Amino acid sequence: MAVEPFDVVDLIRTKRDKGVLTTEQITWLVDAYTRGYVADEQMSAMTMAIFLNGMERTEIRDLTLAMIATGETLSFDGLGKPTTDKHSTGGVGDKITLPLAPLVASFGVAVPQLSGRGLGHTGGTLDKLESIPGWRAKLSNDEFYAQLKSVGAVICAAGSGLAPADGKLYALRDITGTVEAIPLIASSIMSKKIAEGTAALVLDVKFGSGAFMQDPARSRELAETMVQLGKDAGTKTVALLTNMNVPLGLAIGNANEVRESVEVLAGGGPADVVELTIALAREMLALAGQPDADVEAALKDGRAMDTWRAMIAAQGGDPDAALPAPRESQVVTADADGVLAAQAALPFGIAAWRLGAGRARKEDPVHHAAGIDLHAKPGDRVTKGQPLFTMHTDEPARFERALEALEGAYRIGDTADDVGPLIAGRVD
Amino acid sequence: MAVEPFDVVDLIRTKRDKGVLTTEQITWLVDAYTRGYVADEQMSAMTMAIFLNGMERTEIRDLTLAMIATGETLSFDGLGKPTTDKHSTGGVGDKITLPLAPLVASFGVAVPQLSGRGLGHTGGTLDKLESIPGWRAKLSNDEFYAQLKSVGAVICAAGSGLAPADGKLYALRDITGTVEAIPLIASSIMSKKIAEGTAALVLDVKFGSGAFMQDPARSRELAETMVQLGKDAGTKTVALLTNMNVPLGLAIGNANEVRESVEVLAGGGPADVVELTIALAREMLALAGQPDADVEAALKDGRAMDTWRAMIAAQGGDPDAALPAPRESQVVTADADGVLAAQAALPFGIAAWRLGAGRARKEDPVHHAAGIDLHAKPGDRVTKGQPLFTMHTDEPARFERALEALEGAYRIGDTADDVGPLIAGRVD
Repeated sequence: MAVEPFDVVDLIRTKRDKGVLTTEQITWLVDAYTRGYVADEQMSAMTMAIFLNGMERTEIRDLTLAMIATGETLSFDGLGKPTTDKHSTGGVGDKITLPLAPLVASFGVAVPQLSGRGLGHTGGTLDKLESIPGWRAKLSNDEFYAQLKSVGAVICAAGSGLAPADGKLYALRDITGTVEAIPLIASSIMSKKIAEGTAALVLDVKFGSGAFMQDPARSRELAETMVQLGKDAGTKTVALLTNMNVPLGLAIGNANEVRESVEVLAGGGPADVVELTIALAREMLALAGQPDADVEAALKDGRAMDTWRAMIAAQGGDPDAALPAPRESQVVTADADGVLAAQAALPFGIAAWRLGAGRARKEDPVHHAAGIDLHAKPGDRVTKGQPLFTMHTDEPARFERALEALEGAYRIGDTADDVGPLIAGRVD
Repeated sequence: MAVEPFDVVDLIRTKRDKGVLTTEQITWLVDAYTRGYVADEQMSAMTMAIFLNGMERTEIRDLTLAMIATGETLSFDGLGKPTTDKHSTGGVGDKITLPLAPLVASFGVAVPQLSGRGLGHTGGTLDKLESIPGWRAKLSNDEFYAQLKSVGAVICAAGSGLAPADGKLYALRDITGTVEAIPLIASSIMSKKIAEGTAALVLDVKFGSGAFMQDPARSRELAETMVQLGKDAGTKTVALLTNMNVPLGLAIGNANEVRESVEVLAGGGPADVVELTIALAREMLALAGQPDADVEAALKDGRAMDTWRAMIAAQGGDPDAALPAPRESQVVTADADGVLAAQAALPFGIAAWRLGAGRARKEDPVHHAAGIDLHAKPGDRVTKGQPLFTMHTDEPARFERALEALEGAYRIGDTADDVGPLIAGRVD
């Protein structure tokens, strides 16, 4: 057995007593945990100490780099075009990746978008795309590079070879109550994104009731931490702070979110989805050297749609196929005249999840046609009896539990509650 | 599988966010951990959250009672005499249990003293007594009760049946950096002492450089917590706060500490060892209903010594046998005339440990003849060349590492440093 340079209990005590760990200590810790020398119970004590006592910027950088070093890293140097990627911290109705990736790629920029599946009340990009008949999330490395070269946009599943320490640590945090710590969230997201090898990265960091992190100040701190981590690693990184107090767009689910994304690519779609797609596309294109790209034109003239169709087809999907339809739908109507005053993201996310759009456990399937279509947004005038939203499911027994989640989630009044602007800030 | 009433991640989050756990939650947590449903990595995250966020008095009481409930409890109701016990948080040269148990028992009070072994720089009572040829630490329940009835004093190894949750939790804390938390120390000590069934308990809570807890204020907090726990469980409990800045007595080791204890039982011995033995004996006898017992007389007239001899003989030991002698000894002398100004407990404890008196790992044996004999105490006048202390070991290679530990540990000056009184406070 090799002699270990550090005693893990000393390192835990250092963090417990609000000390700062050195680069060598963090590098060793992550490596020793990944190879099993440091035990889960030791790492969980460490992560709780990190949760409660925080980490210095240098420690978060070291942690991120140490996690990257436990696995492989991709490189797009031979691609001959700039690369740029987007990451969202997740929200309700957040389908932005779907129109965004082909839109940006239509300007000749490669978008290698390694995505995940949904867990909890926020959906997963891969789950949404899998409503398209034939579409495959899993690509070989060769297919991935070939599609990046030809189409420019790829949305596919990340392999397990990137930052494996992060996967092990995330599973541990999940069962030990240490998910929500900024140093751990930031290093988890950024280790995978940096290992992925993109030259530029735009982060969509959400706040509000439907976001992972409700508090805007904490979201800003997370955004600043991640932007700094990107810069430390040589990845051009910008973050937008965006509002997740109300669902994004009118569709919450899987197939219905694909449908809404196609509307945006056809030059239509809900205003908030269009606004955020354009804002993120501008940031991505600016980082890729095209600060003056006419993003709106590419949505209007079909260029973005063409790239979408090519991207879906390249992964086996039929862009013209009918999307799955729900077995049962139930309409909820307004019980008074007035203005839709409130529409809280979290309960709508939970309701869609309960209808079958999300999964309770990692190994569960999602129902592609399940979800909610909204017929009004906050501020819209409604009259008694008018449909407010429609719930879709394959299992009608789920309606009741969805309606329970929606108790108090929307309200008709005189004016809409002020939840602030969609794009609340920018960090670079 | 039975349905579990709580989700451990919720409980961890509650404590992480400075919440208070209910009696039902704590009882379930300790039970579920003991039977393996709650995993080590979950319990270590919980203990780190407890370490950093503390526990309310009610939670500490619930934790203590929950640990007791995981195992058996002893009862001395049929004994026909009062029972009283002492617990020390551990120190350097702390052999007080050896003269104390027979001294108190000589007044007709039963002293069921379940003791432990040393780990780290503080010695273990059983290790010391095992220097006596033939003496056995392990007794059957029948032998234990019979000796309590006939001799009155028993010092023996605790069985693993008392508060098994504490044993499992202590082993976890040891490798995850959460040993020094007051709620966890207090519940660990008191769960075993209460399960042991003694009617009264005197705690010797040490502070200073050689103690587990250096800070007097923290020691007082620990003492107050434990006294309250004792009262909550119906055990009459008193604590003395005692000074561990300098070694206790003149002997640090095993056989030499037995020798010094016998000197005290013969009416002699170092002043500090005598003072503390008498103070603790008075507290124990007061709790047992003899507040006016003439403790000093029992040391002078041989009654305590008679009980010692009976106690040692009852466990197979020969009270007249020669104690093990060290293979090698090395004397350290004064390098100047003056007053011994300082003699720091911790380095002397570590030096004795390195000489072989303590063990590095639980499974190691101790060397019974190893240790240090002090020839001067702080405040004593010394002349150049006069022996200050003698180190003993069976392995002469150990002298060098012991001397390294003693670097700066003692000093000759004009006056002794003020380290305060031996007995600094009392909690009842």
